[in-house]
Amino acid sequence: VGGSAAPVRVAIERLEEFVNDVLHAAGLDRSGAARTARLMVAADARGSDSHGVFRLPQYVRRILAGGINKHPDIRVIEDRLATALLDGDNGMGHLVMSRAAELAIEKARRTGVGWVGARRSNHAGPAALYASMPLAHDMIGVYLAIGSANHMAPWGGTEMLLSTNPISIAVPAGRHAPVVLDMATTAAAYGKVKKKVQAGDAIPEGWMIDRSGRPLTDPARVHEGSLLPIGGFKGYGLALMFGLLAGTLNGAAFGRDVVDFNADFTSVTNTGHCILAIDIASFMDVSTYKARVDAVCGAIESSASVKGGEAIRVPGARSAALLAESVRSGIRLDSALLDELDRLAVTLGLAPLPGRARDG
Amino acid sequence: VGGSAAPVRVAIERLEEFVNDVLHAAGLDRSGAARTARLMVAADARGSDSHGVFRLPQYVRRILAGGINKHPDIRVIEDRLATALLDGDNGMGHLVMSRAAELAIEKARRTGVGWVGARRSNHAGPAALYASMPLAHDMIGVYLAIGSANHMAPWGGTEMLLSTNPISIAVPAGRHAPVVLDMATTAAAYGKVKKKVQAGDAIPEGWMIDRSGRPLTDPARVHEGSLLPIGGFKGYGLALMFGLLAGTLNGAAFGRDVVDFNADFTSVTNTGHCILAIDIASFMDVSTYKARVDAVCGAIESSASVKGGEAIRVPGARSAALLAESVRSGIRLDSALLDELDRLAVTLGLAPLPGRARDG
Repeated sequence: VGGSAAPVRVAIERLEEFVNDVLHAAGLDRSGAARTARLMVAADARGSDSHGVFRLPQYVRRILAGGINKHPDIRVIEDRLATALLDGDNGMGHLVMSRAAELAIEKARRTGVGWVGARRSNHAGPAALYASMPLAHDMIGVYLAIGSANHMAPWGGTEMLLSTNPISIAVPAGRHAPVVLDMATTAAAYGKVKKKVQAGDAIPEGWMIDRSGRPLTDPARVHEGSLLPIGGFKGYGLALMFGLLAGTLNGAAFGRDVVDFNADFTSVTNTGHCILAIDIASFMDVSTYKARVDAVCGAIESSASVKGGEAIRVPGARSAALLAESVRSGIRLDSALLDELDRLAVTLGLAPLPGRARDG
Repeated sequence: VGGSAAPVRVAIERLEEFVNDVLHAAGLDRSGAARTARLMVAADARGSDSHGVFRLPQYVRRILAGGINKHPDIRVIEDRLATALLDGDNGMGHLVMSRAAELAIEKARRTGVGWVGARRSNHAGPAALYASMPLAHDMIGVYLAIGSANHMAPWGGTEMLLSTNPISIAVPAGRHAPVVLDMATTAAAYGKVKKKVQAGDAIPEGWMIDRSGRPLTDPARVHEGSLLPIGGFKGYGLALMFGLLAGTLNGAAFGRDVVDFNADFTSVTNTGHCILAIDIASFMDVSTYKARVDAVCGAIESSASVKGGEAIRVPGARSAALLAESVRSGIRLDSALLDELDRLAVTLGLAPLPGRARDG
């Protein structure tokens, strides 16, 4: 697995264009391809490299197999003053959830808060992409989703009934980077497991257990294992509650209905997500709030660290630094992914991603 | 520490009456005392014994010291269609947050969702009490709060800047008990630590670390320790985000401003909480939703468990069973708590809690 060349940096615009061309060649219309490409590359630019362009080969395989609606009619099917439910018409999750975020922001502007759920959607990339959309409107964002394959058993069980069901919460700051948490309810997101498998590396202890409850570290055996929830019963509880909110409440799949998008490329996944936007001005002056968030971040970052420990981090600060680096120097792609993208380009009759040293 | 007698069961109504009399003797008016007593005893009835009547001596001490406003004017100070901000006027947290829940339910009925925050409140007991209030209205509840003392350092740090900031999410079911998660973002809630200290038991490993990062198990040393977050950086991140939502957004204390209500009985704590109510009918037919929640619970409970393991539990099922038992047989109070309640009654010139075998 994986090429032999060193990682390469590719300019954001160049990578967007490549992804856009690939998605269009696979059948998405130009506007859908461009919007999806922008969001996928934005994920890599912020360091969510297991949820960005890394997923392109899998998305293309699903589009070509007929598992994605290339021309979805994304519609509001339930609508109240502060809530809505979208039917994603089996389109790309990125298109469904960026629409949901826009709608939640609109509703929050009118009522103080907006909650928009979606059914019949698909994998949409990292949670933080959508939770962060309200930030530019001086709003707080919260995003929940059902993971696109069940990789976790209930606490004490062995049947894979749950996914990594993530949460992201994004809060704007003043001088400080926005505070953005994006986490799976499992010790590790499955995308991180996939990166280890792709690289042939051992799975770190604490990520997975096998059916008898013993640590599973062999990357060849991941299909036999269950991800471990954070905090034992608590993380299992969070995954369950997020599923009842992001899945069941929207009429989306949850539990035994969830389609494993790693194994089945044609069935409608009926993926569910939801997004909440909170208008800060409904509670206090926006600049006061941002200054107070700055103060909290400052207190944490300047507080004493354990002897010999690393600097104390506020969630989102690392992503903001990686984004600045990506803008300056391009997005870092490892050689295994570059090889996959080359193969994808060949399959679709496109030129390979330009601007990198080729390793044959 | 602790008496020598066995635990005793006391009827719910009898315990409510006792707590009501104690709070009234301490200075709360009859209506505030009765409402607070009902909520405190409801906590014990559902098994949240570290957040119910166990807290009564501490509450009384604060009321007598002037740290609680006995006649608060709880007011809406910001109001939009789907949101509100309450000023709790330093009243008992139970009064502030039951009012907040009522308001969130009202707003959700009109707009689909209601989010109500509170500042200048106080400790309100277990999170699940408030998250569960929307259930009777066919709504989902979510509650967040700032813990009433900082017992956790940021991940990698040693300064106690964070509390156990809990979340509770409550979802109604049909035949099944409501699904109710109530969890601190720390491995253990501080109330559980207090119960261990009261009983003189060792602190289980994994709950706390000392300033050098080593496990802290000696109950005499808990003041030197930091609670451990669930999932390391993730639990720290959740505690931080819940703080920015339940505290900072409401103009309540967070970080260095938090008053340690275990050590300081007179300063205004300016405790923050928030509650979200989601009207299920905005998304789908309520009975359909409840039937689907039943199906998810049924699938989990009937799924295979690890060899020799316990039955697989859905959050909230144990509380529902304990409530049924409390209704049937009374609330189980241990002897250490009974002794404390006796001393409290003597101090306030009240008769001791009737209906139990006395151990002198």
